[in-house]
Amino acid sequence: MAKRRKQHRGGAKADADGPDIGPSRTGGKAQHYWLYGLHACLAAIANPARQVRRVVIATQNVDTIEAAVCEAADAILESHPQALRPHIECRDRRELDALLPRDAVHQGICVDATPLPHPVIEDVFQLADGKNSACVLVLDQATDPRNIGSVMRTAAAFGALAVIVQDKHAPEITGAMAKAASGAIERLPLVRVTNLARTLDQLKQEEFWTVGFDGHATDLLTPKTLAGRNVIVLGAEGAGLRRLTRETCDLLVKIPITESVESLNLSNAAAIAMYQFVQSNA
Amino acid sequence: MAKRRKQHRGGAKADADGPDIGPSRTGGKAQHYWLYGLHACLAAIANPARQVRRVVIATQNVDTIEAAVCEAADAILESHPQALRPHIECRDRRELDALLPRDAVHQGICVDATPLPHPVIEDVFQLADGKNSACVLVLDQATDPRNIGSVMRTAAAFGALAVIVQDKHAPEITGAMAKAASGAIERLPLVRVTNLARTLDQLKQEEFWTVGFDGHATDLLTPKTLAGRNVIVLGAEGAGLRRLTRETCDLLVKIPITESVESLNLSNAAAIAMYQFVQSNA
Repeated sequence: MAKRRKQHRGGAKADADGPDIGPSRTGGKAQHYWLYGLHACLAAIANPARQVRRVVIATQNVDTIEAAVCEAADAILESHPQALRPHIECRDRRELDALLPRDAVHQGICVDATPLPHPVIEDVFQLADGKNSACVLVLDQATDPRNIGSVMRTAAAFGALAVIVQDKHAPEITGAMAKAASGAIERLPLVRVTNLARTLDQLKQEEFWTVGFDGHATDLLTPKTLAGRNVIVLGAEGAGLRRLTRETCDLLVKIPITESVESLNLSNAAAIAMYQFVQSNA
Repeated sequence: MAKRRKQHRGGAKADADGPDIGPSRTGGKAQHYWLYGLHACLAAIANPARQVRRVVIATQNVDTIEAAVCEAADAILESHPQALRPHIECRDRRELDALLPRDAVHQGICVDATPLPHPVIEDVFQLADGKNSACVLVLDQATDPRNIGSVMRTAAAFGALAVIVQDKHAPEITGAMAKAASGAIERLPLVRVTNLARTLDQLKQEEFWTVGFDGHATDLLTPKTLAGRNVIVLGAEGAGLRRLTRETCDLLVKIPITESVESLNLSNAAAIAMYQFVQSNA
């Protein structure tokens, strides 16, 4: 499919209406929150876009964790001398349990961090600038933080540029999402937009093909489907893609599974699509 | 790679020592347990290998669920007239919450069912008999029931013959595993073996190639890797494959991910491997 040609859509690159979300919205949202899990915490400490206020390590895990924490903190101070060194505390494991939601698998570490800035769709256009092959994920009405985190992890693993979700339905970044993302939330933009169909149109104008994954599609995903610049559009489990999203996509494909199974879970479908993208552009 | 040739291993098909697990072990294990979630429950009701004693539907969900439950129960009575019709009860949603583990996403239905019989490795050989292409999954030391359930769901979707786990480390089938499997636990054998390396040797004698997925492998997974009869061997997250498992595999491959991300999650790695298997044998 290679690079989308602009004249196919006839659209000019500039959108007179401008972007559909503002550059940063913190509003009444939490000004800091707890992250947990080793990869998620180390990535947050190493991210200059965050301010990590406290690092709490379980006494039982100090031997295996503390050196990695200090290394991440040193590295960030070296590259960003104005950053504040986080305060490291050792506490009993049960005190960490009490700080975090029940069933949080914290692996002996949690950090109190400020939220990430909100990236905007124009940041994605900039990342894609000049690339012959590029991949962006769009999740239509995904609501489970762990699912979104899991998709972020795999998207980062396959070099996707960003994950885009609808602002109205998607949960804010939480400890559970960051844990499932295993650090990817710090590296990959999670862009929230008001109107997904409009964002897909903007991506088309930026020479992306928009490929919807739909269990009822007649075309199968093949090695040729995802060559070039592609937006992989995935629906919520069960509900699938909404009508308007489906109709806005350039093409709809189905992952070839047996008829006796209704669908794959969201993060597995995303993993397969991104793997195929990488294979098709190798 | 096509069909493995027996003479490569020089082994006769018959193994003088016989299988390494017994045909069925219930021992002191639970004689019945709760399953929950719509797909998991409907599949259990429709499975003649289970005896479903009670079906509890949330009053709030009766309209959308009851017809499907009756249809599944009717179908099983038609094909297996000796089966008992399950007793269907309507209860308030909070009563279902109280019956099940905290945080169980029951979708308004749970069933009290007897355990499944334990399949053995010879069942897998029989399923593979005469097939030029076939796929079996082996999970080395996977311990998370939801991870295993999720792999089962994807394995069923791509027509794998079975999932094999090590008896010592793998959890028993639970409601959480069945919910993640979304019904696949009823259709796909989950085989528990004592010695994984020995099972891999048995599978080699049955003309399977054993392909270990290892983040440190030098060869990449390609469209050619999984042609023919294959065992896909995956390690636990973090730990990866154990040394003996690695050394027993015919070849080791790596899913091509960026260096900045350490690994994929288990079920995503399994999904990619099975998708590639299906593509390579289409």
